[in-house]
Amino acid sequence: MTNQLVIANQMLQHMITEFTANELAPLDMQIDQQQDYPAGLFQKVVDNGLLATTLPAEYGGAGFNFEAAAEALERMATGNASMAVTLEGHFKTIEQFVKYGSPELNAKYLPSAAHRIFAFSQTEPSGGSNPTGISSRAIRQGDNWVISGDKIMITNGGLAEVYCVLAKTEDDRLAVFVVDKDMPGFSFGKREDFIGLRGVPVGEIVMDHIVVPSYHLLGEVGQGLEIGDNAHADARVLMGAVLAGILDHELTIAVDYAKERKALTTPLYQLQVTQQKITDVAIARENTRNLYQSGASKKVAGQAYDEVAAMAKSYGSRAAVLGGDEVLQILGGYGYSREYPIEHLIRDARAMELAEGSIEKMNLEITKAEINK
Amino acid sequence: MTNQLVIANQMLQHMITEFTANELAPLDMQIDQQQDYPAGLFQKVVDNGLLATTLPAEYGGAGFNFEAAAEALERMATGNASMAVTLEGHFKTIEQFVKYGSPELNAKYLPSAAHRIFAFSQTEPSGGSNPTGISSRAIRQGDNWVISGDKIMITNGGLAEVYCVLAKTEDDRLAVFVVDKDMPGFSFGKREDFIGLRGVPVGEIVMDHIVVPSYHLLGEVGQGLEIGDNAHADARVLMGAVLAGILDHELTIAVDYAKERKALTTPLYQLQVTQQKITDVAIARENTRNLYQSGASKKVAGQAYDEVAAMAKSYGSRAAVLGGDEVLQILGGYGYSREYPIEHLIRDARAMELAEGSIEKMNLEITKAEINK
Amino acid sequence: MTNQLVIANQMLQHMITEFTANELAPLDMQIDQQQDYPAGLFQKVVDNGLLATTLPAEYGGAGFNFEAAAEALERMATGNASMAVTLEGHFKTIEQFVKYGSPELNAKYLPSAAHRIFAFSQTEPSGGSNPTGISSRAIRQGDNWVISGDKIMITNGGLAEVYCVLAKTEDDRLAVFVVDKDMPGFSFGKREDFIGLRGVPVGEIVMDHIVVPSYHLLGEVGQGLEIGDNAHADARVLMGAVLAGILDHELTIAVDYAKERKALTTPLYQLQVTQQKITDVAIARENTRNLYQSGASKKVAGQAYDEVAAMAKSYGSRAAVLGGDEVLQILGGYGYSREYPIEHLIRDARAMELAEGSIEKMNLEITKAEINK
Amino acid sequence: MTNQLVIANQMLQHMITEFTANELAPLDMQIDQQQDYPAGLFQKVVDNGLLATTLPAEYGGAGFNFEAAAEALERMATGNASMAVTLEGHFKTIEQFVKYGSPELNAKYLPSAAHRIFAFSQTEPSGGSNPTGISSRAIRQGDNWVISGDKIMITNGGLAEVYCVLAKTEDDRLAVFVVDKDMPGFSFGKREDFIGLRGVPVGEIVMDHIVVPSYHLLGEVGQGLEIGDNAHADARVLMGAVLAGILDHELTIAVDYAKERKALTTPLYQLQVTQQKITDVAIARENTRNLYQSGASKKVAGQAYDEVAAMAKSYGSRAAVLGGDEVLQILGGYGYSREYPIEHLIRDARAMELAEGSIEKMNLEITKAEINK
Repeated sequence: MTNQLVIANQMLQHMITEFTANELAPLDMQIDQQQDYPAGLFQKVVDNGLLATTLPAEYGGAGFNFEAAAEALERMATGNASMAVTLEGHFKTIEQFVKYGSPELNAKYLPSAAHRIFAFSQTEPSGGSNPTGISSRAIRQGDNWVISGDKIMITNGGLAEVYCVLAKTEDDRLAVFVVDKDMPGFSFGKREDFIGLRGVPVGEIVMDHIVVPSYHLLGEVGQGLEIGDNAHADARVLMGAVLAGILDHELTIAVDYAKERKALTTPLYQLQVTQQKITDVAIARENTRNLYQSGASKKVAGQAYDEVAAMAKSYGSRAAVLGGDEVLQILGGYGYSREYPIEHLIRDARAMELAEGSIEKMNLEITKAEINK
Repeated sequence: MTNQLVIANQMLQHMITEFTANELAPLDMQIDQQQDYPAGLFQKVVDNGLLATTLPAEYGGAGFNFEAAAEALERMATGNASMAVTLEGHFKTIEQFVKYGSPELNAKYLPSAAHRIFAFSQTEPSGGSNPTGISSRAIRQGDNWVISGDKIMITNGGLAEVYCVLAKTEDDRLAVFVVDKDMPGFSFGKREDFIGLRGVPVGEIVMDHIVVPSYHLLGEVGQGLEIGDNAHADARVLMGAVLAGILDHELTIAVDYAKERKALTTPLYQLQVTQQKITDVAIARENTRNLYQSGASKKVAGQAYDEVAAMAKSYGSRAAVLGGDEVLQILGGYGYSREYPIEHLIRDARAMELAEGSIEKMNLEITKAEINK
Repeated sequence: MTNQLVIANQMLQHMITEFTANELAPLDMQIDQQQDYPAGLFQKVVDNGLLATTLPAEYGGAGFNFEAAAEALERMATGNASMAVTLEGHFKTIEQFVKYGSPELNAKYLPSAAHRIFAFSQTEPSGGSNPTGISSRAIRQGDNWVISGDKIMITNGGLAEVYCVLAKTEDDRLAVFVVDKDMPGFSFGKREDFIGLRGVPVGEIVMDHIVVPSYHLLGEVGQGLEIGDNAHADARVLMGAVLAGILDHELTIAVDYAKERKALTTPLYQLQVTQQKITDVAIARENTRNLYQSGASKKVAGQAYDEVAAMAKSYGSRAAVLGGDEVLQILGGYGYSREYPIEHLIRDARAMELAEGSIEKMNLEITKAEINK
Repeated sequence: MTNQLVIANQMLQHMITEFTANELAPLDMQIDQQQDYPAGLFQKVVDNGLLATTLPAEYGGAGFNFEAAAEALERMATGNASMAVTLEGHFKTIEQFVKYGSPELNAKYLPSAAHRIFAFSQTEPSGGSNPTGISSRAIRQGDNWVISGDKIMITNGGLAEVYCVLAKTEDDRLAVFVVDKDMPGFSFGKREDFIGLRGVPVGEIVMDHIVVPSYHLLGEVGQGLEIGDNAHADARVLMGAVLAGILDHELTIAVDYAKERKALTTPLYQLQVTQQKITDVAIARENTRNLYQSGASKKVAGQAYDEVAAMAKSYGSRAAVLGGDEVLQILGGYGYSREYPIEHLIRDARAMELAEGSIEKMNLEITKAEINK
């Protein structure tokens, strides 16, 4: 990196650290409990320019690269994982515009990404996330596409205003289209009542003959699967960063408690079983951090990063669930109480064993990568 | 067993199975969500005589032995683990009266155990469950004892009406005394906001110079630790039964889902990873069942059962947490939703890795038993 | 059990305990190192009547039931697992004669089972243990069958004198035939150089047009798969017993070492991490014992026992491998040395994660059993 | 790195890759079986200048830095882990000379490190590796030190010619001295019969009043513990590299087998359970590699690296043992055979859960590092 980039990155991380400490961490428990961001919080995220972190300068953004953005999400997740995942969903979508969007589409849409959340949606009610089961349709009508279908389990669904949707054309080729919540025919469906990351709305959109101009096609017809996979890989790197942040939060809780509390007269951290648990979490944080940073820097360097992205999400999510469980055990009754944060960190991390591809899909993709080396 | 006992036991299990299916299982989700038993439910438990399951016939009870009671709790826990734990706390306390109580004490108190919950309390705010840190005091005054102190983390605290409390006498010997919620000086403190077994109130009692007659001493002065350990062993066997029931519930959820749902055209149960998970849970249920039944039958036979009791609780709780997590993964998004039961089964089981002795205490006790063989 | 049976069983277990302590345990290290039973040892097994343990009295055997035999193998395996597996292979084969053999076959062959090892073989070089891939053939010629084929991975292959072999008839139905090592056309092939259970020869037989009379058919043509599955189930129960014995041996080593050795001035057994390991092994022994005993008693009672048999082998083998690894860690450099037994116990137990059906096959069978309940 | 360094490093890695493929990998099985390096092999290592890899140029070495050396050991360990550990023991010792040695000592000794193995020894028969239990003594006599004592479990003990030994001075301060196998009073003791890394001699030296000049003191009196800890940290980084190489070897075996073999008609790599195993090993290799590389680059950059060094050894050794066990399971009977390499990789990796500090010591050190952050 040039010195200028290094300094800019330091400033970003410093700002995120401050924002997390002052605005997010104090609301962490509340966000979990009320299953929503408190009034005004999301606007502060916008006002501080966080939505524009990775947005290229030509569209009015800060233009930070993926490594910087990932590091920012790790830091944010040490205070509140939900908001970090809300940004992850936004950042991964912007990446697809930047990579696949036509100049016309990007000129029209990307500037608004500084203050509006963008979302990417693949899953459908009956088809799981399996692309061959997509039943959303995009029908060509003159210069327009008419899009109908139902998408569920969308990160930021309901909060986001712009949605990339995977649909089939008349000749059954997959393609990605951009729709806007203000378009006729667009409506929101059910919000999931998930057990973790409770600040993040995960929801449904229903598209009933939404008419979009032809440049709302992202990439080309037939490229839908590729774009979806690319979005997955980007999301997995960023989720790795969020998971490193959760593990860091878990470790902080464990270390603070183990220093302060005693079993009779022995500080807890001097007990072998406490040391075992702290060590497990510390190693898991280190490994998860290495994996996501490797994914991010490979992406920035133009190298293949999908395998290590899958590793970051797969390893990190399991490690953060198990690590949180170990810390809960250190804390005993406090750990088991809703009045202390550790239990919701486990629920938060657990989401990422399911989102953006299940464990089994990660195994399949990593194996394929190894088999084909 | 005699034929008569076999038949009586069958009738008990049949009744519990019906009661669970009709009264408890339909309320399982609601009990978790409202953190309390719905109005009237506990009264139905009383009206059906369930509090009196193990109460000796001479005190108006059904007089079932510990094996039958444990089996009943396993069955009940397949529908709702909270109510099974509420009964566990009651049953374990009755066992201490039967074993250690004087005829006078038992004659006065045990008949009411058919309609009032009895509880056993050891833990104090500052001392953990470590007996040397007990600061509750019982001071001899003429024919009475005057008891003061604060007990927390009591299973059924707030719901129970009679409490056995561990206290120190003036010469620092430990003893157990019986207090009643209607006595002057008795008051309830804070209820814990625990993440699982949310039907079971876990709460605090405050004793401010409660005066009890001398026969309220359970066992003898100096026997407090022994009685506490005995109560632990009884509780652990019954918790093993509850955990076997939770594992059975988990397995039912997994099997039903894996039979019904398909990945593309393949039923889930034909996938190797699903088979791995179902097998893990099935083996864990079998092992947990064997352990608690072994504990119960050793107790009935008058053999030492504390080691296997510790195993039942220790192994069963870890297995039910990990097993629930595996089933959650089979169910994917459904598993991760508050609208489906599997996620609360994990939270329910997790309580029992902490209650009645931590994992580390179980390890210590089991090791001691092996070292001294 | 009648009193007589109880006494007979006690005498058997006493005898096995003595034989193990006096004849087997002292040779345990040597058997591992020389990959064979020392000269004369096997003859002592024969001379002590151990081959006839389960052989019905009408054929000159001791007629102990399967529960007694399984318990005997657990005891024997605490001293040497190889010899216990040699007997397991023999006992499971005798079970198939008793269940499926015609009076003529049994009258001719079973009396010799008191001094000759019987073996059961299914696996072939190319087909794994998958029955559809069987290429051994049995061709009817008048009153005889002519059998050709190649069987590998046979427990006691080379030591056994009588072999049950799974073969296909001309119409591709599977059947089991009995061949004798002294028959023309019979020869031994390669002995495997396996890493554990090194006393047990695991070997190959080659059958080149062996002619046997028609009564050498075990059961009926078409029953081959059923008999093979039945042999598997019997073997798995007995392997569960062997694994309980290995776990007991591991626990003994751990407890003895942890009592004797100190870390500075603290006996090892007082360290939390040592307690964790000892507890894991103690629980695993208890669970494995419960599983195999449950399998054996269900078989004796005429109940289905194939699922619990699969559990005993599957759980027990994994637990004994992991348990041995934990004990090795307690012992440190001693554990890592060939001069101490713990390392070979891990290798011995590891065999049983592969033999008589892989982990994945166990998962499949247990899942099927649960799905069809 | 400068371009020159990059090119030099590439040449080193290329040379190591060739040497490993041509000279080491073909002997991997033989080295395990004969528990020694075949005649002439070690001389080839010397002749190829490998002992001088990290030796500074001023002493006639190649002067590669620690990152390059670590990478070289990873590559070498993919072919044979024993030889990589032999070099690890040598490299870590040279590091202590370079860091702590006086000019006089280094001028006298280091040039010979290009053709003679140097070793570092701390452990004693009765004291474990606990420094307070050191009973070796160095007594000042005029300008000399007279050293007596017994050191065991020395990596390359018997093969090495120069030994750094930790001893106590008369005033009970710890210090490190350099002795040479040709000195009067020096003799070799017992070689351990360890189950893995069987090429590496692990042995004992006995020192009976060895007289060395005063400049044979490495560092200063009182610095013994610091030097020992520094040697541990260096060794742990390099062991992380060896473990990454073992994991790579395991992964290669798994991938090759899973591509080639079929379960009926399905290639093994298409089975979910095989994918799970391959994924576990691939992630473990990535994590272990990241950890040791982080340790090496921190050391080169002059940053604290002891915590990540402990992580590399602790995580990597457990992961390589468990990973090898998973690959063994993929291979089935082949995996369980002494004729295939996977089983000895497990034994090789297992050494490093004990060497250079047990798991429990790693936990202690990592916890301390986290507590003091």
